[in-house]
Amino acid sequence: MNPTEITEEQIKMKVFPFSLKDSVKDWLYYLPPEPEKARQTLLLQSARSILNQSAAMAEEAEVVKNKQVVLKNYATGFVKDSDFIIKTDSTMSLKVPESSSKGVLVKNFYLSCDPYLSFLMQKSDSSLEAQFSRFSLGSTINGFGVAKVVDSRHPKFEKGDLVWGITGWEEYSLIAEPDSLFKIEHTDVPLSHYTGLLGMSGLTAYGGLFEVCNPKKGEKVFVSAASGSVGLLVGQFAKLTGCHVIGSAGSRENVHMVLYCRVDLLKNKFGFDDAFNYKEEQDLDAALKRYFPEGIDIHFENVGGKMLDAVLLNMRMHGRIAVCGLMSQYHQEKPEGLYNVASILIKRLRMEGFGVFDYLHLYPKFLDLVLPQIREKKITYVEDIAEGLENGPAAHVGLFSGRNVGKQVVLVARE
Amino acid sequence: MNPTEITEEQIKMKVFPFSLKDSVKDWLYYLPPEPEKARQTLLLQSARSILNQSAAMAEEAEVVKNKQVVLKNYATGFVKDSDFIIKTDSTMSLKVPESSSKGVLVKNFYLSCDPYLSFLMQKSDSSLEAQFSRFSLGSTINGFGVAKVVDSRHPKFEKGDLVWGITGWEEYSLIAEPDSLFKIEHTDVPLSHYTGLLGMSGLTAYGGLFEVCNPKKGEKVFVSAASGSVGLLVGQFAKLTGCHVIGSAGSRENVHMVLYCRVDLLKNKFGFDDAFNYKEEQDLDAALKRYFPEGIDIHFENVGGKMLDAVLLNMRMHGRIAVCGLMSQYHQEKPEGLYNVASILIKRLRMEGFGVFDYLHLYPKFLDLVLPQIREKKITYVEDIAEGLENGPAAHVGLFSGRNVGKQVVLVARE
Repeated sequence: MNPTEITEEQIKMKVFPFSLKDSVKDWLYYLPPEPEKARQTLLLQSARSILNQSAAMAEEAEVVKNKQVVLKNYATGFVKDSDFIIKTDSTMSLKVPESSSKGVLVKNFYLSCDPYLSFLMQKSDSSLEAQFSRFSLGSTINGFGVAKVVDSRHPKFEKGDLVWGITGWEEYSLIAEPDSLFKIEHTDVPLSHYTGLLGMSGLTAYGGLFEVCNPKKGEKVFVSAASGSVGLLVGQFAKLTGCHVIGSAGSRENVHMVLYCRVDLLKNKFGFDDAFNYKEEQDLDAALKRYFPEGIDIHFENVGGKMLDAVLLNMRMHGRIAVCGLMSQYHQEKPEGLYNVASILIKRLRMEGFGVFDYLHLYPKFLDLVLPQIREKKITYVEDIAEGLENGPAAHVGLFSGRNVGKQVVLVARE
Repeated sequence: MNPTEITEEQIKMKVFPFSLKDSVKDWLYYLPPEPEKARQTLLLQSARSILNQSAAMAEEAEVVKNKQVVLKNYATGFVKDSDFIIKTDSTMSLKVPESSSKGVLVKNFYLSCDPYLSFLMQKSDSSLEAQFSRFSLGSTINGFGVAKVVDSRHPKFEKGDLVWGITGWEEYSLIAEPDSLFKIEHTDVPLSHYTGLLGMSGLTAYGGLFEVCNPKKGEKVFVSAASGSVGLLVGQFAKLTGCHVIGSAGSRENVHMVLYCRVDLLKNKFGFDDAFNYKEEQDLDAALKRYFPEGIDIHFENVGGKMLDAVLLNMRMHGRIAVCGLMSQYHQEKPEGLYNVASILIKRLRMEGFGVFDYLHLYPKFLDLVLPQIREKKITYVEDIAEGLENGPAAHVGLFSGRNVGKQVVLVARE
């Protein structure tokens, strides 16, 4: 059967397995809000990939076992280990099917644990749902990772290339449209750094701080979830710009000891001018007034909810808020309300949502800035590496209980 | 006594009357959030003006009766006629006191009714209070108006000049710091237009649409409170840019007939592509999906609350929201929550508060655009003129019950 002849009807009848259909789901997140058309196009592409893969197998390409982390239950409240399942019976042909003109097949080395994945694991009935796609039950988790090209039909990539970008939480991934995979050119720094500092986290911090907020020397910068992988870098980039930087960090009560260390680390290891534990503050507005008596010029938002509401009250005229994440909201069934919207008007604030995909074109410029800083050890970067794909779910769950310090990475395989 | 010798102590002891102290209060609204310092400085300036005025009176300058509209009660809920009082026993010397090096004395012709005045009439215990100043009991209402210079010590203005800018709701006003008064150069258009189309409303619409939202031909624009003085102009400027423009209008139920006319007028008189009555919509989200099946690129926000929440769900990727006013919130004791904040992140929206004072430098450029359009009758503009200062309160109250169509103006005196 010719893949181009696949009909919508066949897709509806599920003539192809779930797993590969979902390998493209993540891309939907970044598409313009024409969900139905985009989804159909991508479903067709996926279905074609499946048939192409069968063809490749008929060509006697090597077929290997492919362990995968799959969504078992939709997340409700905080994500739990039991929401994931480790699937050990899948296989993968190590050849990109002939008719997939742009496909790349990769072996995954490192995966990145990021809070937004929890959001994609929820089943939501909100009308936001229509605008992007979450993971479906039985689908492989997808996220940022570092991998090596095993086979390629894409002119930009060849076998042996090291890459970073969106890949699957599995040993091998077939990436049908690798437009946002980056080739790794510099290997004098740890490869795992491309899951964070030199990958999504770094470019996110760079784009959000410099493109959205345009910081000037001497400005007051507040970073929420400052001990997260993006927050730590935002703080350091802002310090390099000559700003006064204060961060907040938090955790659930039961890991209070770890939290104490976090706030301490922000000040003593990561060079923040000051930091506070928001869990110890009865009144976030009062806390911000204490740390920013003259107000906040730039706020880098990773948290949302009550923290953002308190920040709005403490912004200065013409302040800028980069909305990078809303971590406090991902586990909520209904989002919290934001009440101090009048501050946006009264203080002429600019609040802007952004994602790393808006700044991919700046990656070379970003590397020019950050690679020398890494080599001269002017940037402090910490990774928390969980060994083994099967420990991925626990590592991800740990993000929300404050278990990690710095970037949480999952090691799938060594080079 | 030399005015420069006035002490803080004397100010606290109220050695000068209320009315003039408050004539500068409105400026505080636009100052950076250093309220205490700014307030003290302005109080000192006011006190000096008072003493200077006494000195002028001693110089036998002409003294006239000066009718004033004064705040009687803090507004709670919707503003009522009875929250104002007409004060008829004040007087004004028609000479700027000698030591007021920059003062201008004006005779007021037209005053502008604007929703934000209601907000300044509330007594609030919110912590926003610290960042700007509301009217205090017994103070004269201040707002935008058109006036003629009676006497001036400012090098930019001379007797006989026509001006627009912030003035008092009174027959004569002494403006101590006329930095934001504009001289009216073009009198081939109705003078009353400088309260709106050629003044604050026009420059607000221009700055908000072109500077904040950067509209492109073919983009979908939504204007809330579209039948208000700013909304009507935003819609027409967007149409001139080649955008597809839809407006919403609303009123309280008891003036349903008037509202019907408004929506009709938006379409048939003001050239909107479509318009709807939000009071007739059970579900604002559904209404917006009906009018914007492909989503909204640009939203010009005059309303806030539930409308803004529904708009967030219907914005397109990289959409822009200019926050010009939050009319639905001014009469609320506690603001409504905004729940769809995640849209800002997911759809990379930019939401920006602004005020006309951010764009004063663009006034000449604005006139270059809009004067030819007025002369060629390409802009439709409607004024609702209430005759007599004593009818000002009712005219202002009417803004919130949907009584007016187009710009609500109060005629204080004819030229």
